Amino acid sequence: MNTINTASSVISSDKVQGTKVYNPNGDKLGSVESLLLDKLSGKVRYAVMEFGGFLGMGTDVYPLPWETLKYDTGLGGYVVSLTKEQLEGAPRYARETTQDYNDEYGRKVNEYYGVPWI
Amino acid sequence: MNTINTASSVISSDKVQGTKVYNPNGDKLGSVESLLLDKLSGKVRYAVMEFGGFLGMGTDVYPLPWETLKYDTGLGGYVVSLTKEQLEGAPRYARETTQDYNDEYGRKVNEYYGVPWI
Repeated sequence: MNTINTASSVISSDKVQGTKVYNPNGDKLGSVESLLLDKLSGKVRYAVMEFGGFLGMGTDVYPLPWETLKYDTGLGGYVVSLTKEQLEGAPRYARETTQDYNDEYGRKVNEYYGVPWI
Repeated sequence: MNTINTASSVISSDKVQGTKVYNPNGDKLGSVESLLLDKLSGKVRYAVMEFGGFLGMGTDVYPLPWETLKYDTGLGGYVVSLTKEQLEGAPRYARETTQDYNDEYGRKVNEYYGVPWI
């Protein structure tokens, strides 16, 4: 799959969803399940990641601040600077549940990854 | 389907995709097929709309600047201020093709809907 159309300044949400995520060593961590958009500004706030199989984490999903993801053309996927230990303690919830992304939760997620809460 | 979680400041791309779109008279025009994100800023630039059945427009899709969509809690969908005539002349392309969203194309779309090109 050609995940990124480099001739274009935009990318389809369809193509981001399902894109693989790696750590800086090139190990596959999982893939992007969905994106969470700020209702007012229309900006992507979080990529919701599923870490299929990795660390035996089951069906939990992990919201990652969008700013933590960098696209790597060589790998054809996103790279996040996360260690196994960071992932194990990261905010998560069961995929089937509806997580309330109120300010308190958003702040908690951003603080965990060291991304300023604006 | 509960399309919008009003308790939250964010909304999932999964829930935006498939949400119905109406005109100000409450007539259903179609639905959101996908979102186009600015690669650099992470902001939603366009909602790609499919106008299933309406006007016999087949499988063409229509990029609408995100700013033209307003969510209507009563209708449970987005409202766009578009007349039939505006739609008929609007930028579109066949769903199966890959549209190159270069600056020229983006400018053309925004100008059509009177949205400033930044």
